Amino acid sequence: MAVLQIGAGGVGWVVAHKAAQNNDVLGDITIASRTIDKCEAIIRSIHGRDNLKDKSKLLQARQVNADDIDAVVALIEEVKPDLVLNVGSPWINVPLMEACYRAKVSYLDTSVAVDLCSEGQQVPEAYDPQWAFREKYEQAGITAILGAGFDPGVVSVFAAYAVKHLFDEIDSIDVMDVNAGDHGKKFATNFDPETNLLEIQGDSFYWENDGWQRVPCHSRMMEFDFPVVGNFKIYSMAHDEIRSLQEFIPAKRIEFWMGFGDRYLNYFNCMRDIGLLSPDPLTLADGTVVQPLQVLKAMLPDPTSLAPGYTGKTCIGTWVQGSKDGKARSVFIYNDADHQEAYRDVEHQAIAYTTGVPAITAALMYFKGAWAGKGVFNIEQLDPDPFLETMPALGLGWQVQELTPQAPVIHDLRANVSEPKVEAALV
Amino acid sequence: MAVLQIGAGGVGWVVAHKAAQNNDVLGDITIASRTIDKCEAIIRSIHGRDNLKDKSKLLQARQVNADDIDAVVALIEEVKPDLVLNVGSPWINVPLMEACYRAKVSYLDTSVAVDLCSEGQQVPEAYDPQWAFREKYEQAGITAILGAGFDPGVVSVFAAYAVKHLFDEIDSIDVMDVNAGDHGKKFATNFDPETNLLEIQGDSFYWENDGWQRVPCHSRMMEFDFPVVGNFKIYSMAHDEIRSLQEFIPAKRIEFWMGFGDRYLNYFNCMRDIGLLSPDPLTLADGTVVQPLQVLKAMLPDPTSLAPGYTGKTCIGTWVQGSKDGKARSVFIYNDADHQEAYRDVEHQAIAYTTGVPAITAALMYFKGAWAGKGVFNIEQLDPDPFLETMPALGLGWQVQELTPQAPVIHDLRANVSEPKVEAALV
Repeated sequence: MAVLQIGAGGVGWVVAHKAAQNNDVLGDITIASRTIDKCEAIIRSIHGRDNLKDKSKLLQARQVNADDIDAVVALIEEVKPDLVLNVGSPWINVPLMEACYRAKVSYLDTSVAVDLCSEGQQVPEAYDPQWAFREKYEQAGITAILGAGFDPGVVSVFAAYAVKHLFDEIDSIDVMDVNAGDHGKKFATNFDPETNLLEIQGDSFYWENDGWQRVPCHSRMMEFDFPVVGNFKIYSMAHDEIRSLQEFIPAKRIEFWMGFGDRYLNYFNCMRDIGLLSPDPLTLADGTVVQPLQVLKAMLPDPTSLAPGYTGKTCIGTWVQGSKDGKARSVFIYNDADHQEAYRDVEHQAIAYTTGVPAITAALMYFKGAWAGKGVFNIEQLDPDPFLETMPALGLGWQVQELTPQAPVIHDLRANVSEPKVEAALV
Repeated sequence: MAVLQIGAGGVGWVVAHKAAQNNDVLGDITIASRTIDKCEAIIRSIHGRDNLKDKSKLLQARQVNADDIDAVVALIEEVKPDLVLNVGSPWINVPLMEACYRAKVSYLDTSVAVDLCSEGQQVPEAYDPQWAFREKYEQAGITAILGAGFDPGVVSVFAAYAVKHLFDEIDSIDVMDVNAGDHGKKFATNFDPETNLLEIQGDSFYWENDGWQRVPCHSRMMEFDFPVVGNFKIYSMAHDEIRSLQEFIPAKRIEFWMGFGDRYLNYFNCMRDIGLLSPDPLTLADGTVVQPLQVLKAMLPDPTSLAPGYTGKTCIGTWVQGSKDGKARSVFIYNDADHQEAYRDVEHQAIAYTTGVPAITAALMYFKGAWAGKGVFNIEQLDPDPFLETMPALGLGWQVQELTPQAPVIHDLRANVSEPKVEAALV
């Protein structure tokens, strides 16, 4: 048995540790990235934490440009993995799926890019390029598991669990993500700043009244009293799982919400106002051409550097409302993760931890035959039970909280967002 | 007669218009800049506003790199000016003074660079490189007039006027600058962003108790009820005239204050926190090296573009307290300028207007023989009366407001500034 991991960022770090802790099942591990140094740093950390369970198995680094399909195919032919774990940037999903198809090997990823700045990459069409592989994968007898992180990922498994065990009919699915941790920096992103800040500034899409609804970012807000971390303001946001949940689980409203502190939003708004979040080319006085967002990325702390000092908890879950046996029902199915506990386990923070642990849980489902169907599957299409039985042993527990059924109080902030009070828009 | 103007930014724009309106005295006008297009745009505006008083005189553009002393000397030899008007970046003062010395022609500028990021360029030593020319200029029989804008410039003339006419002894000199205008942008600087944002983020220096006192920027605040524009929060700031006033006018405390709105400070603090105000090289992921401050400069609106929509007024002046005839006295000598009126006169906003009008007023003093001493002079060393008699006719009036003598209420905000509440310093 063998796995090939592509990507060596924060999530890749956690995935490699967790793969190593489970290499009695997953076999030899190859970690590949454009920058081989990053792979080697992860391998040193795995040895340092004594996280390689079966020391007779291979743990090695390789350099590869994941955009280069031929190079990936060659690497697959060298390594002969049973599964390719894509934990790189979501921009490489399609070339990697193509490489896996050509090499006839199964594929797993943790998210798809949702980006207001890219044509055809908004929520409604986000999965189209990957769903286009369905027939090819089925015919080739290989498996693709899409969106196997936490959100997307576990939150979608929670929804599938709700369908299977808790509800007869579902009215609303609200995926909610709050990081109540403190990384000790004035401003930093928890994962790749480019992915993060493109995602956050996009219009929000949510499903309601049999159609996609679109509102400006941070213009639709509610408050929710989370277990463990308490009350937070959360904002409707474009996020990939909304698209796949809408495909596979009928509901009247499906929406994703993320918690942002007032301080974070102030930094975000300032950066957006001056143009620093733009991916468009900017010409400097000396003729140098840069993308402002790449400049910001270079200024911000490396997300992987945040882990040692990160304290506090995250709470991510799925709030499902509907009916069971003719009675209204409301449940919040969630995980709370602790940044310091994540660090003790794999030398990383909880944001990466909550994404990486589910990816390896899903990989174990594939290797153990629980999820062995041929074709392309979003995670909510697969049986939630063995996954949810396995995940706590890998480090992430989960709870079902029964709530009083209630219509959420959603605030429309469009008036605040679209019209700055004092001054008009930038030229 | 002839003048050579170096610099074609916002102040250069106003200076050229005002020179043209007074070319019966100043003679032929040559406007030179690194970018000749800017000079030509100014010339078109002068003709468009019909601001060239004596149409028999020359008004022409030249390209020159002001750092290149030989090139400037050659241009001086071609143009044969009686006075070189330096209205470029303050970083070119020293090479231009050297070029004027070599070509034996008089020199005038409007400010000196004060910059926390440059060695030897803080307030206490700001003028040293220019004062080093005193003996050379005297021996060469040429004149240098330093700091002939508004602040430095007119505010220093106000102080000289107070010494000459209003006080026997001076306790305190507070130079105060408030822009109550609205340029309609979320964030923009009124003159070159690099000069402006380096100056603003520097520690403040003020003179008190026979020595230089140093505090972090925006950490020392008072409120002042300005004529015309009303009450403003103003912050102690490093500014060049404090150094020369301390040299030439004895007082117990000399300090510069600038008004900043809460909204401006919020943008400023955000940009500083993320590192965008830094002039230090930053390497991007693709290997490109940039200065974040240059990236910001390229993103912000061109200050010259603000003028057409700029509304409201500025108020800049000198608050002098001390005694006259044995009685305590307190006066605020000030100008208020209107952005729209400035635009009607010279197609520019009041910030540039208040700097440019005094430069040409000072040039007229030189041409008319009122300020004809040989050597290097800061403007407060020269007779204030003819200057203040002339300036209103060029567009800037001035008033003396008698106040009730009072100790200013100065707030120490260092606790707020140096320790952010929620999170620690950036790595």
